[in-house]
Amino acid sequence: MKQGKFITLEGIDGAGKSTQLAWIAELLQRAGKRVVVSREPGGTALGEQLRALLLDKSITMHAETETLLMFAARREHLDKVILPALAQDQWVLSDRFTDASFAYQSGGRGLNSAKLDILEQWVQGTLQPDLTLYFDVPADVGQQRVSRGGVVDRFEQEQADFFLRVRAAYLDRAQRFSDRIKIIDSNRSLPEVKAAVEQVLQSLLHHE
Amino acid sequence: MKQGKFITLEGIDGAGKSTQLAWIAELLQRAGKRVVVSREPGGTALGEQLRALLLDKSITMHAETETLLMFAARREHLDKVILPALAQDQWVLSDRFTDASFAYQSGGRGLNSAKLDILEQWVQGTLQPDLTLYFDVPADVGQQRVSRGGVVDRFEQEQADFFLRVRAAYLDRAQRFSDRIKIIDSNRSLPEVKAAVEQVLQSLLHHE
Ligand SMILES: Nc1ncnc2c1ncn2[C@@H]1O[C@H](COP(=O)(O)OP(=O)(O)OP(=O)(O)O)[C@@H](O)[C@H]1O
Ligand SMILES: Nc1ncnc2c1ncn2[C@@H]1O[C@H](COP(=O)(O)OP(=O)(O)OP(=O)(O)O)[C@@H](O)[C@H]1O
Ligand SMILES: [Mg+2]
Ligand SMILES: [Mg+2]
Repeated sequence: MKQGKFITLEGIDGAGKSTQLAWIAELLQRAGKRVVVSREPGGTALGEQLRALLLDKSITMHAETETLLMFAARREHLDKVILPALAQDQWVLSDRFTDASFAYQSGGRGLNSAKLDILEQWVQGTLQPDLTLYFDVPADVGQQRVSRGGVVDRFEQEQADFFLRVRAAYLDRAQRFSDRIKIIDSNRSLPEVKAAVEQVLQSLLHHE
Repeated sequence: MKQGKFITLEGIDGAGKSTQLAWIAELLQRAGKRVVVSREPGGTALGEQLRALLLDKSITMHAETETLLMFAARREHLDKVILPALAQDQWVLSDRFTDASFAYQSGGRGLNSAKLDILEQWVQGTLQPDLTLYFDVPADVGQQRVSRGGVVDRFEQEQADFFLRVRAAYLDRAQRFSDRIKIIDSNRSLPEVKAAVEQVLQSLLHHE
């Protein structure tokens, strides 16, 4: 069934995912691919409503509740956006996916990663991204970039040690799944980051 | 930790759960128990927002998304309401709980019950209600009672065969867990149903 490729962008808040996303879509389109750009949590009407709840600073919730809501939005995203697009030979580019749950809910919030493994299997079976670009920056760099933006959300308001744990979990995962996850040093100028991303994507396009 | 008792009310829409709930609370209070009355999906501020999404007829969602949202609301309900109350020796009376997920999302929507087993274990571990009152009515009786109420929600709008499957799943579960789940024939007059419920509750109170 699956024909298009599924690419996810990961990294702590402020790493530069959204900044890179737009031109990555252009690069793929210039290479002749039909591209669907999406994000998590979100990507569907219901998913965006769940995103609003998840990012709302006035709401407190148990870390396991947060995790279940992330996977509920993901299940809908797979059903309505990701799987149909891939089946029609479109490429899907998602700003965050399941690695973010391992990084934030397990690394950041402290849930046992075995509980994440169970939900990953429950929701997506064996489906994995074909390529994950992990934008790596030190925790304080991400926080500085985000704080320039003004209003922070329920995750961005977390303290420095939270983002240290999230980054460590991302790096751990990138090592474990080094075939799929490519680490992009994002603590550099935008043109340098862009060049690094372009290299990885050209390699993917050539090995099709 | 757990000291109070956890009682859940189950049954298809229109079976009579909410009608019985109020006086059951009174009966327990007269027996000297402190009682917390709640419901699912819902029971917490976030849970009620999820309930609104789950019952909204203008929203369509995958059956697995629906299931994950039910368990997200349940996780929060356990954390904020059920577990703290039980730990303080209060009795908790909930209008629906996990049996409803097996009945509606597995029986009604057709999800494999093994997927429900996984989420049940994920969210509640070994915690189970001390007593479940299952109000049994034929599917058409439930539908007639509901339709007298006027506006129907996303579940109540389902066709007759949906409620046949939900009821069958409830009965199946009541047989498998006959120690915990007591079947109340609810296709009788209110006083008769009430008498049957009272008998079960008096037995629970005497065996404390
Ligand atoms: N390489 C870079 N050097 C300097 N600033 C950058 C770089 N990349 C992104 N930024 C800036 O950092 C801020 C955060 O970037 P961006 O929104 O792309 O991060 P993000 O990873 O999408 O964060 P979030 O997870 O919060 O959405 C923006 O103001 C962006 O312009
Ligand atoms: N034994 C009974 N005989 C006749 N009518 C009843 C009986 N029990 C309840 N009803 C009526 O049926 C309707 C539905 O009852 P109720 O709201 O208690 O059901 P419910 O199980 O809570 O349904 P829902 O799942 O939709 O909330 C109400 O109008 C109620 O007055
Ligand atoms: Mg972003
Ligand atoms: Mg009711």
